Amino acid sequence: MSNPVVAEALRGGRVESAHRGSGAVVDADGAVVLAFGDIERPVYPRSAVKALQALPLIESGAADRLALSPKEIALACASHSGESEHVATARAMLAKAGRDENVLECGAHWPLSEQASRAMARAGGTPSALHNNCSGKHAGFVCLACSEGIDPKSYVAPDHSVQCEVASAVAGVTGAQLSEETRGVDGCSIPTYAIPLRALALGFARFGTGQGLERGRAGAAARIRAAVAAHPAIVAGAGRFDTEVMTLLKARAFTKTGAEGVFCAALPQAGLGIAVKVDDGGARAAQAAMAALIVRFGGFEEDVRAPLAPLVAPRLMNWNGIETGVLRPAGPLALRGGV
Amino acid sequence: MSNPVVAEALRGGRVESAHRGSGAVVDADGAVVLAFGDIERPVYPRSAVKALQALPLIESGAADRLALSPKEIALACASHSGESEHVATARAMLAKAGRDENVLECGAHWPLSEQASRAMARAGGTPSALHNNCSGKHAGFVCLACSEGIDPKSYVAPDHSVQCEVASAVAGVTGAQLSEETRGVDGCSIPTYAIPLRALALGFARFGTGQGLERGRAGAAARIRAAVAAHPAIVAGAGRFDTEVMTLLKARAFTKTGAEGVFCAALPQAGLGIAVKVDDGGARAAQAAMAALIVRFGGFEEDVRAPLAPLVAPRLMNWNGIETGVLRPAGPLALRGGV
Repeated sequence: MSNPVVAEALRGGRVESAHRGSGAVVDADGAVVLAFGDIERPVYPRSAVKALQALPLIESGAADRLALSPKEIALACASHSGESEHVATARAMLAKAGRDENVLECGAHWPLSEQASRAMARAGGTPSALHNNCSGKHAGFVCLACSEGIDPKSYVAPDHSVQCEVASAVAGVTGAQLSEETRGVDGCSIPTYAIPLRALALGFARFGTGQGLERGRAGAAARIRAAVAAHPAIVAGAGRFDTEVMTLLKARAFTKTGAEGVFCAALPQAGLGIAVKVDDGGARAAQAAMAALIVRFGGFEEDVRAPLAPLVAPRLMNWNGIETGVLRPAGPLALRGGV
Repeated sequence: MSNPVVAEALRGGRVESAHRGSGAVVDADGAVVLAFGDIERPVYPRSAVKALQALPLIESGAADRLALSPKEIALACASHSGESEHVATARAMLAKAGRDENVLECGAHWPLSEQASRAMARAGGTPSALHNNCSGKHAGFVCLACSEGIDPKSYVAPDHSVQCEVASAVAGVTGAQLSEETRGVDGCSIPTYAIPLRALALGFARFGTGQGLERGRAGAAARIRAAVAAHPAIVAGAGRFDTEVMTLLKARAFTKTGAEGVFCAALPQAGLGIAVKVDDGGARAAQAAMAALIVRFGGFEEDVRAPLAPLVAPRLMNWNGIETGVLRPAGPLALRGGV
């Protein structure tokens, strides 16, 4: 059975492309408030669980021992655009661990932001591992290891103590079994474990509320949420979905994109967690779906819903700025009488 | 009824993402050799029909009157990467029409090629309409108008004589009805008319063989194919699918990508035309599907099939050059015992 269409791109009033997907909205007790498509099949959450992967950095006391700032904690959860602030913050984290970029094992790539990438080229620069969108997460791993007196070398390997602690936190919060069988290699070389959307949504309901988590872990989750809410430009970058949503909603929503059309979120006030996977990996559809779910379940007033509308149903423009169509939620997420 | 899965991306041996789509392989008499999914629904062919849109430039005698070179004719069919050779060729075409880039109505964007884009930034440049991937097609439109003594102003409008000639050629070759009802605005502001895949595939079978076309049009098609075969780096750019395939196969295949997962091709020796649309617009899936169809229907020897294999089932690498998985044709296009 195929998953339903969750978003469609229109051109000239005609559906040009359509994206199928699945998703779950779950409360901290595990009750499923909404489900569409297959929410039991394990999917790789990729970068959407960076905030859960950052829990050991806080819980272990490493962040306190190294006096990491809220901005640095936010960067540990980021898929950043490689802007100068992101790069400087990653460098500062590593310095607190007594290290530099040579310790990073994420690989180098040009900044995700085309603007940042061109600015670097204009200045005659070339990218290092600090510009990798995952450099903050990796700097967090290095801080965790160094603070515990563990050699960070090969910290990306599944059997390194850092990855064992990280996997244990993700398994604990989501309730999912993480095994070699469900393991793949992520874009930045760390393991990524496939987890059903139902478990991911439950994990984010717990992460957003603290319910169902041990006291220390609940406190760590709250501290990460506060750090990200205070620095929404750090977790993504200028013009990006997560930055725009959290700049608007602040602590009322935590959202995190992942590669291949995965999106996770917590709505702390509503007590809900959300997990979405677009079958084909399309980020545009995952964003529209997530925006639609935030609007439907966030319980927000009109003053917040209105500025979210362009994220729910973005107008599609061509190179001359002419509107050629629209991307809109569809099927189980179709809009009913406006955003 | 949903279209079948035509390509899937694997990570750690598990299907991470899957793309559905439809496609047709048709001979010049209209016989359907292979069909999967819905091939009757009209889809916007976007840039995949640039070669058909270039027919009036040749048929009208404009290309001869302005002494356009084969390289310039190839650029009229291109979705180019904005490399310096592409830009210089577009400029030269306009000069032959007594014009410059100010006449272009496609809009400006940074070169599609990240390398070309960064090289431009490094040199302190900013893009003009010449860097738009469609600038060659637009330069061809300007040449057509000017050569016929027609004011090129508003040449992108559906009722400008240039677009009427272009639509008439596309309708004639494909046999499809093009009307206001099936019209959308393309990324470069010209009209794009939705056409069923069956008709697109028939059109490319005719374009590739000349069968079923009037003598003058058949000659124009042959001239365009020869121009592109002689300049495969002009129609796309370094490392891109169309350039790689035609560098390898030369006149034995004509392939052209379009936005939103559309792909058209002609296999002149086999007498076949191919048209593919990936539901979600995913280019990676359209490429793998097209590569699989070329291998299956091209009748090529092993010496050609082997170098095509990385296009049929590209390995997916991460930022450290570690192989994380593979993208492979699936369902009706699944490989049977190797490429």
